[in-house]
Amino acid sequence: MAMKTKLSLAIFLFFLLALFSSLAMARKGREVKDPELETCKHQCRQQHQYTESDIELCTEKCDKYHQMKKEREREIEEEIRRKKEHEIKRSSHHHEEEEEEEEGENPYVFEDQHFDTTVETEGGRVRVLKKFSKLSKFLQGIENFRLAIIEAEPHTFMPPRHLDAEAILFNMKGRGIIGLVVEDKTERLNLESGDIVRIQPGTPFYIVNRDENEKLLLAVFHTPISTPGNYEEFFGPGGRNPESVLTAFSWEVLQAALKGPRKELESLFDQQNEGGIFKIPREQVRAMAPKKSIWPFGGKSNPFNLFSTSPIFANQYGRLLEVGPDNDKSGLQGLNLMLTFANITKRSMTTVYYNTHATKIAVVKDGEGHFEMSCPHVSDSKSKRGRVSYHRISGNLKPGMVFVVPAGHPFVTISSKRNNLQIICFEVNATGNKKLTFAGKNNIVRALDHTAKGLSFNYPPEKVDEIFNRDEQFFFPFFEEPARADA
Amino acid sequence: MAMKTKLSLAIFLFFLLALFSSLAMARKGREVKDPELETCKHQCRQQHQYTESDIELCTEKCDKYHQMKKEREREIEEEIRRKKEHEIKRSSHHHEEEEEEEEGENPYVFEDQHFDTTVETEGGRVRVLKKFSKLSKFLQGIENFRLAIIEAEPHTFMPPRHLDAEAILFNMKGRGIIGLVVEDKTERLNLESGDIVRIQPGTPFYIVNRDENEKLLLAVFHTPISTPGNYEEFFGPGGRNPESVLTAFSWEVLQAALKGPRKELESLFDQQNEGGIFKIPREQVRAMAPKKSIWPFGGKSNPFNLFSTSPIFANQYGRLLEVGPDNDKSGLQGLNLMLTFANITKRSMTTVYYNTHATKIAVVKDGEGHFEMSCPHVSDSKSKRGRVSYHRISGNLKPGMVFVVPAGHPFVTISSKRNNLQIICFEVNATGNKKLTFAGKNNIVRALDHTAKGLSFNYPPEKVDEIFNRDEQFFFPFFEEPARADA
Amino acid sequence: MAMKTKLSLAIFLFFLLALFSSLAMARKGREVKDPELETCKHQCRQQHQYTESDIELCTEKCDKYHQMKKEREREIEEEIRRKKEHEIKRSSHHHEEEEEEEEGENPYVFEDQHFDTTVETEGGRVRVLKKFSKLSKFLQGIENFRLAIIEAEPHTFMPPRHLDAEAILFNMKGRGIIGLVVEDKTERLNLESGDIVRIQPGTPFYIVNRDENEKLLLAVFHTPISTPGNYEEFFGPGGRNPESVLTAFSWEVLQAALKGPRKELESLFDQQNEGGIFKIPREQVRAMAPKKSIWPFGGKSNPFNLFSTSPIFANQYGRLLEVGPDNDKSGLQGLNLMLTFANITKRSMTTVYYNTHATKIAVVKDGEGHFEMSCPHVSDSKSKRGRVSYHRISGNLKPGMVFVVPAGHPFVTISSKRNNLQIICFEVNATGNKKLTFAGKNNIVRALDHTAKGLSFNYPPEKVDEIFNRDEQFFFPFFEEPARADA
Repeated sequence: MAMKTKLSLAIFLFFLLALFSSLAMARKGREVKDPELETCKHQCRQQHQYTESDIELCTEKCDKYHQMKKEREREIEEEIRRKKEHEIKRSSHHHEEEEEEEEGENPYVFEDQHFDTTVETEGGRVRVLKKFSKLSKFLQGIENFRLAIIEAEPHTFMPPRHLDAEAILFNMKGRGIIGLVVEDKTERLNLESGDIVRIQPGTPFYIVNRDENEKLLLAVFHTPISTPGNYEEFFGPGGRNPESVLTAFSWEVLQAALKGPRKELESLFDQQNEGGIFKIPREQVRAMAPKKSIWPFGGKSNPFNLFSTSPIFANQYGRLLEVGPDNDKSGLQGLNLMLTFANITKRSMTTVYYNTHATKIAVVKDGEGHFEMSCPHVSDSKSKRGRVSYHRISGNLKPGMVFVVPAGHPFVTISSKRNNLQIICFEVNATGNKKLTFAGKNNIVRALDHTAKGLSFNYPPEKVDEIFNRDEQFFFPFFEEPARADA
Repeated sequence: MAMKTKLSLAIFLFFLLALFSSLAMARKGREVKDPELETCKHQCRQQHQYTESDIELCTEKCDKYHQMKKEREREIEEEIRRKKEHEIKRSSHHHEEEEEEEEGENPYVFEDQHFDTTVETEGGRVRVLKKFSKLSKFLQGIENFRLAIIEAEPHTFMPPRHLDAEAILFNMKGRGIIGLVVEDKTERLNLESGDIVRIQPGTPFYIVNRDENEKLLLAVFHTPISTPGNYEEFFGPGGRNPESVLTAFSWEVLQAALKGPRKELESLFDQQNEGGIFKIPREQVRAMAPKKSIWPFGGKSNPFNLFSTSPIFANQYGRLLEVGPDNDKSGLQGLNLMLTFANITKRSMTTVYYNTHATKIAVVKDGEGHFEMSCPHVSDSKSKRGRVSYHRISGNLKPGMVFVVPAGHPFVTISSKRNNLQIICFEVNATGNKKLTFAGKNNIVRALDHTAKGLSFNYPPEKVDEIFNRDEQFFFPFFEEPARADA
Repeated sequence: MAMKTKLSLAIFLFFLLALFSSLAMARKGREVKDPELETCKHQCRQQHQYTESDIELCTEKCDKYHQMKKEREREIEEEIRRKKEHEIKRSSHHHEEEEEEEEGENPYVFEDQHFDTTVETEGGRVRVLKKFSKLSKFLQGIENFRLAIIEAEPHTFMPPRHLDAEAILFNMKGRGIIGLVVEDKTERLNLESGDIVRIQPGTPFYIVNRDENEKLLLAVFHTPISTPGNYEEFFGPGGRNPESVLTAFSWEVLQAALKGPRKELESLFDQQNEGGIFKIPREQVRAMAPKKSIWPFGGKSNPFNLFSTSPIFANQYGRLLEVGPDNDKSGLQGLNLMLTFANITKRSMTTVYYNTHATKIAVVKDGEGHFEMSCPHVSDSKSKRGRVSYHRISGNLKPGMVFVVPAGHPFVTISSKRNNLQIICFEVNATGNKKLTFAGKNNIVRALDHTAKGLSFNYPPEKVDEIFNRDEQFFFPFFEEPARADA
């Protein structure tokens, strides 16, 4: 038996080759005349004992067989084509799933490699976080949202475009200008750190970094309106780089619509720019500065600024700012979206808490830190009867990283010893949301009645209260040494 | 090497055949006694040097190997079965994709072959456009909508049914009657060309072509309420053709519910009609004519008529009519749907424009023409960094064709030299929608501020305005010769 | 030809084996040195007529070929891996589909085997009906809803948890207490048979069976808010069984958040309880009894009770109770959900009727009976032109069974000769819903106008009315003998 196996080893490898080559041939073989068919027919004709009709029957069978074979080949070709397509479609997904495993099953924390770079020029870059449903099967519920990060170098211009998505732009850092085409003119707004601007679907807009030295850093949160989880950019104006959406039309259409002579149109649409974001001279930056424009949302000439709101929690360990759909001036009405900003003092932490309704999509703005979340999904022991088990999701945080906290999942964020940790969050499904805490003032354990508390913990209720209660609310110290003594 | 390849060519083709045959056999081979297993065991027994126990061990190994082989076969069988299922499920999709390729990658324009015929009798036919998500992966966002076209010959009757869908019926041509069972009686309404009737889910309705000579042509736009993208017809009344929904119940149930003797019920439910749409005599058409019925929507006895509304744009090159959810009398409240009608004068075109929110599902009512759309999805160069590229989607239009324009996508429609082009559109996600134009009065290029315009086009802003501006709004001439001189 | 086939039979089986073995090897072969490559190179070196450079070229080709082969192998490996994953993902689905076939194609009636048991202890059990989209492809439209049945033994406690779902709790039987953590205290409510309590997402709650002898039976209807069709339980308080959601956090986090010494925390979180539902002494039941709590919904101290509402239909054959989103006191506002209770007197039936908008998810509370529904989906003849056909879905009903009736589908339920049949229904998509009947007072056939009725049935309209009309409304007798004469 052993020898037989050994023998087949060589034979099989050869057959494997045969199979592959056959498949490869099957894909290319359609155009060429089939030598096998010719051979088959030739053999029919060489049979001396055959009568004319025998030969005819024989060649007929060759044809029939050949036809059947071709059909099979086509099926296989089709199969291969389909698999290839399938692979393309699912490649990013598989990629991620492998990464998850390598990263120790963390489908909630995302870094640079989870973004696609859609623009990268000397003027800056645009990175779009992959579709959430492709990043993790646990995030299917937010698959229709897409987060993009725009980085623009000093004195740059990002030419006008419109999107098939609702977009909420949050200015994380730097000083910009946004121009929005509303009705028959362009509304221009200064963008300061903390500003929120809502860009309605289809509205043409451009962006300028008006600062001479500092980068402009924008987080844009998209809700696609046509295809779930996908949105597209449509560059209105002419030119080749970025390519104008008008270049797809035939010259006949463009000539009739624009009434211009073809030469002029060609010259217009052949203009080159320096890509998706490009440097512009100081005079042009100044020329685009807003001139006391009347902002349609809330009747103010400036966007709503999250950083200038009153904190909903604040102590020496941190501050939490929040603006939601019930704030009339935010421009977020009707969106079921809330924006929050947490500034966690160095050496501190948030309490252990969860959102009752909202799923939080968080971007680290500044600082470093750590994130821990309790998650029932990933647990293996889930399948066992009578037992739900929880798994720790954790990760170190640094600027630009994204993490997601689904509704109901308790979590903490902790700042490093060196820096405050600043986090910007887009919280979807925000209507009716509450933040419920497990520790500190007004925690839910304390709110449990006496008997139930004792039964639930199988521990004296007074002792439970002692453990869960404390005077601080929401932000606590984490590292024992005093915060100031450290570098 | 060359010879080797040549040799393998023949061998591989043979192996290919072998592979196919083996697979085919694997599917059927489970029942028959395996000859290979028999041979293996036979060889064991023929080894002269073998002791009894050697032979036993040998045959055991045969069995083991055979079992393993069978398992592999089953896996392959299973694989094949699954693929077949998969193929069946996706066949229409793939079918379309192939067609797309043949038609020059056009997943947005649909003709007769993209419809399923659900009724076809002497009295008329009903055709339902395949699920949008099966027609094209780019149309997943509208997969829950289904468009049907009803054609009824003169003096015909389409018996009562109800649907598990919200239905908006638009009378494209001809003179009909619709009977709607509302509370305890039947509301009958005359249908004229341009009439819109909303049929609530579950409402039984029937349709009559009351004209003696002209066909009745209805477009019905469905929003299924139970299963995404699928709706069903439930024929209430008895009879065999169309089959009554009641025939599925057991006789015991029908007898108890209807209290009739079984004979009578059998006779009732065995009645034949002439199918889904059938001819009826003139007297019966007359008997069903509405008698000053009180229409529940808007307190009028007639349906809302789109053709009698004031155009939102009109000039010698075309007219655009529109009715949306904010029109109280339309019956469209709460549906997030708009109906529009464009009548493009022969030799003319619409401007290049896009919808900010709405996705347009258009049906060509009359005339011929051409359609062009700029589309970022299909482009190959999308994957390259810093570059988005646009692809032209185009198609010739003729009556009965359907095309889809997703939100944000700029497009034009052009009439032929011979006829006006008339297009009926169902526009979903209509709330807050605006039509923004690239050329003509009030175009979005003009609205761009001076500096941004120059930077975006890399071209003198004054020249840009010259090209994009013109006096006409929305409809322009297309063919240079005067429209009247032509046949 | 015949001999050729016979010959190939043997050869093919061998090749099949070859193929399988090759594939298997391909999966493992990456690490080992490839013997085929060695052989190839060896043969190059053995060609006496070859010059040095010929040999070099030859071995180079070996390498090239080998590389190509490896790539192909990897592709195949990848393919296999992907299929395996695919299988795992879809296995439950396939499993269900098979079950359907075995059960005689009944994807609308569900029994014990369609539930997953998530808790099973001496104190009781919790069973969750599988995802509707996995139970049947026809139920994709309700895939986001999940039904759970809680059975708690006398004097038991189900410790506090919160859910990432909106939950509507219906008390089918028994006497319970529910404690809900609202703001900073616990609202406790007595649960009587028929009580409805809405548990907002994220709200911690616990349940007590306060009765000394009777089981507590609750139906809980969940609308997950994060992941479609999936919800999770988060056990707030500490302990090991059920495991606290806090145990997933690192000791550093717990120590900093709770400020307690590690020893104490360890002791707290190491406490054992007796699982998801456990027995408690009478004194503790009493200590948790509500004390004139102020109920936030409707300003009452008791939950809304469905059984105490006025029936919308009632006669000697049955009673129908209903509470929907337009009832201010029900707590169902904004949910698009209706709860109904049908009590069908023994030997009786409901009329043949359908819901215009709502899909009904029904749980048998008491009694036995029978269910029949007319369904167009399952029919084979659907594909034939001009014909829709209906299929009977039927099943015997007993306590604990679940059946689903999609909108538009006519159905009946019939009680047994022995017992009243009591059914609790959760009806989703309830806004605007009407119940339309085919028989009895005010049926839709009667509402059809005279001419249309005659045409539709191809039968004299007067006779049709005679058959469909009767004095009783909604509930009819089913078995002919008088109801009282029977046991």
